[in-house]
Amino acid sequence: MEVSKRVAAMQFSPIRRFNTYAFEAEAKGKKVYRLNIGQPDVETPACFKEAINNYDKKVIAYAESGGVTELLDAMIDYMKMYDMHYERKDLLITDGGSEALTLIFTALLNPGEEALIAEPFYTNYRTFCNQVNGKLVPLTTKAEEGYAWAKRELIEAAITPNTKAICCISPGNPTGRVLTLDEMKLVGEIAKEHDLWIISDEVYREFAYDDREVTSFGMLEDLADRVVMVDSVSKRFSACGARIGAIISKNEEFMSGILKLAQGRLCVPTLEQIGAAALYRMDKSYYDEMKAEYCARRDAAYEELMKIPGVVCQKPGGAFYLTAKLPVDNVEDFLMFLLTEFDDNGETVMFAPAEGFYMTPGLGRDEMRIAYVLDRDKMRRGAQLIALGIEAYNKKLGK
Amino acid sequence: MEVSKRVAAMQFSPIRRFNTYAFEAEAKGKKVYRLNIGQPDVETPACFKEAINNYDKKVIAYAESGGVTELLDAMIDYMKMYDMHYERKDLLITDGGSEALTLIFTALLNPGEEALIAEPFYTNYRTFCNQVNGKLVPLTTKAEEGYAWAKRELIEAAITPNTKAICCISPGNPTGRVLTLDEMKLVGEIAKEHDLWIISDEVYREFAYDDREVTSFGMLEDLADRVVMVDSVSKRFSACGARIGAIISKNEEFMSGILKLAQGRLCVPTLEQIGAAALYRMDKSYYDEMKAEYCARRDAAYEELMKIPGVVCQKPGGAFYLTAKLPVDNVEDFLMFLLTEFDDNGETVMFAPAEGFYMTPGLGRDEMRIAYVLDRDKMRRGAQLIALGIEAYNKKLGK
Repeated sequence: MEVSKRVAAMQFSPIRRFNTYAFEAEAKGKKVYRLNIGQPDVETPACFKEAINNYDKKVIAYAESGGVTELLDAMIDYMKMYDMHYERKDLLITDGGSEALTLIFTALLNPGEEALIAEPFYTNYRTFCNQVNGKLVPLTTKAEEGYAWAKRELIEAAITPNTKAICCISPGNPTGRVLTLDEMKLVGEIAKEHDLWIISDEVYREFAYDDREVTSFGMLEDLADRVVMVDSVSKRFSACGARIGAIISKNEEFMSGILKLAQGRLCVPTLEQIGAAALYRMDKSYYDEMKAEYCARRDAAYEELMKIPGVVCQKPGGAFYLTAKLPVDNVEDFLMFLLTEFDDNGETVMFAPAEGFYMTPGLGRDEMRIAYVLDRDKMRRGAQLIALGIEAYNKKLGK
Repeated sequence: MEVSKRVAAMQFSPIRRFNTYAFEAEAKGKKVYRLNIGQPDVETPACFKEAINNYDKKVIAYAESGGVTELLDAMIDYMKMYDMHYERKDLLITDGGSEALTLIFTALLNPGEEALIAEPFYTNYRTFCNQVNGKLVPLTTKAEEGYAWAKRELIEAAITPNTKAICCISPGNPTGRVLTLDEMKLVGEIAKEHDLWIISDEVYREFAYDDREVTSFGMLEDLADRVVMVDSVSKRFSACGARIGAIISKNEEFMSGILKLAQGRLCVPTLEQIGAAALYRMDKSYYDEMKAEYCARRDAAYEELMKIPGVVCQKPGGAFYLTAKLPVDNVEDFLMFLLTEFDDNGETVMFAPAEGFYMTPGLGRDEMRIAYVLDRDKMRRGAQLIALGIEAYNKKLGK
């Protein structure tokens, strides 16, 4: 009577598994700046809750498996903003981007088949892929190079007869790397040459800073039959707890497979879909405000971190994450120190150790990811606490 | 560039795939009594929506992966009603019973490993199990025997070295079969002898009619380490669109595996959990009212169906389904006839053909499942429409 091998081999989330120590620190009266998880402090737009509160059907009934029409149509209109044109049959609503990715791997990978992904990558991809006995193959990137990965040699060196797909997360989690449209075209060319699917996770689509344009694989029409996009309200609308996402593709065979899976689990919560439809109907100005806010948070965090001698980090271009090399021997030990020993005026800070974002053993032990999801003063203070912590930690170790 | 074999081999839901024809019939002005899907017309208790409407946090944030405390505690208290005692760590909240089952198969079955299940069974089990390349092995039952399956010979004949679990759905969908506590003990004995997990789907727990007691594998303490229960608010509280379910088990290794999977998908919607907590806090009288209502609906439907010559059906003991053999050559053809050709005073009826609930090819072609989810007058009229339809259908075929 054993559990399955796939589950026995899985890790606990490196983003969440230090929560216990943070709770303990808080119980002792410490204030913990939580930069470990992509949970913004930005208010969810009020229209989400209003739409839900106004829902007055007396029976909370199953929705259609593909999603409620109001939401599908709102998303279709939102995509038009970027000159991307979809029909209802090209979309399927999911329980967040997480379910979207699980269904995609289920629909694409036979056991043992491979999907390429630039590492460090959002760690839960491993769970989504391992669940169906698929295999992620990492394309290793470096802090020194700003985690760039869209290079022909790097990608082609990893392709085997078992390769079925390339995963693209842009703007990227955890690195904040944003693909240019030219880089997307290159990935598309390689995918065509090797007959691969492109799994494009675009949940941070609007969060591209400085002079970067919003880019999407949906803009490249010659790739339409092989592109599978993932969308979500979590980050875009600061509605992480709504768990509304979507799979978008013009490949009919693929979408038919996804619908079969979706019918199995019946549907996504009705009320949350009604709320999400209102979010997608908001004015375009909302995206500009959010982008400006997160950009300012990035700048605050980056500026402070770069004051620390020995930190290696290129300014990230998008999403709301920053991964950096720290001048400590072991970032997990350092995090434990921050949560259990260190404080500055009763305050400490928490981040996600980057090792869990790498598949290649040994990599990332001196890197951390922070999410710049708190206001800029808090981000600045958080980064300062990291600086003070590094000093205290290395002093303790006699360095 | 192909989809995965598992998805290519999957069917569309036999419960949902005739919807298109029903919509077309309705578009032509026909009234369709929809007895095909377990979507009750009973109002969701108002406390669900009230709790959600009263939620006033400004950020709809991620919940803990295992579920929000209010809901876990409400469920723990609900279980005490049946003298079953659990702690928070024994429960994990899921996106409906559907996600619960998907996670359970993922956590228990390696590719190729088997789970036994009495057929006909709730067809989506196939999707949940095939998703992770597990294999369901059917224990075939018969309409003439009231679909009884808890028999030592039947179960043991199906056990192989690859058998890992026995699935028990009681009260059962689609047959309405209810296991007695003695039958559960027998299943438990066999599970112990062959070192198997017991996956017990108890989402219809209270819907056990006549003189039947509520039974649960949670009542058998000597099985605690091998029992994995599935729960859901969908049927119990007529809240199908809420998508709140749970996995309950005292096996710590198993629950640890489930938590790893759950952390991957982050969490279940926050608002729906708040609403569900209110549902589980309702007075016990609610269950009695619901039971009386569904029992009356069953009686109405059963009484009318038994007036049809040639129908084979033992009165079902629980849940809100009834599976019966009909005096027609092919139930799917008959259903198409009902939706596209037949009407009585502008009305027709829809059920789920039972063939999709069987794994063994060829079985169930003359059986249908109805869900007695409409009020008793409608159930009576629905059954009468089936009777009139059979007459018209067989007349058309010259029988």
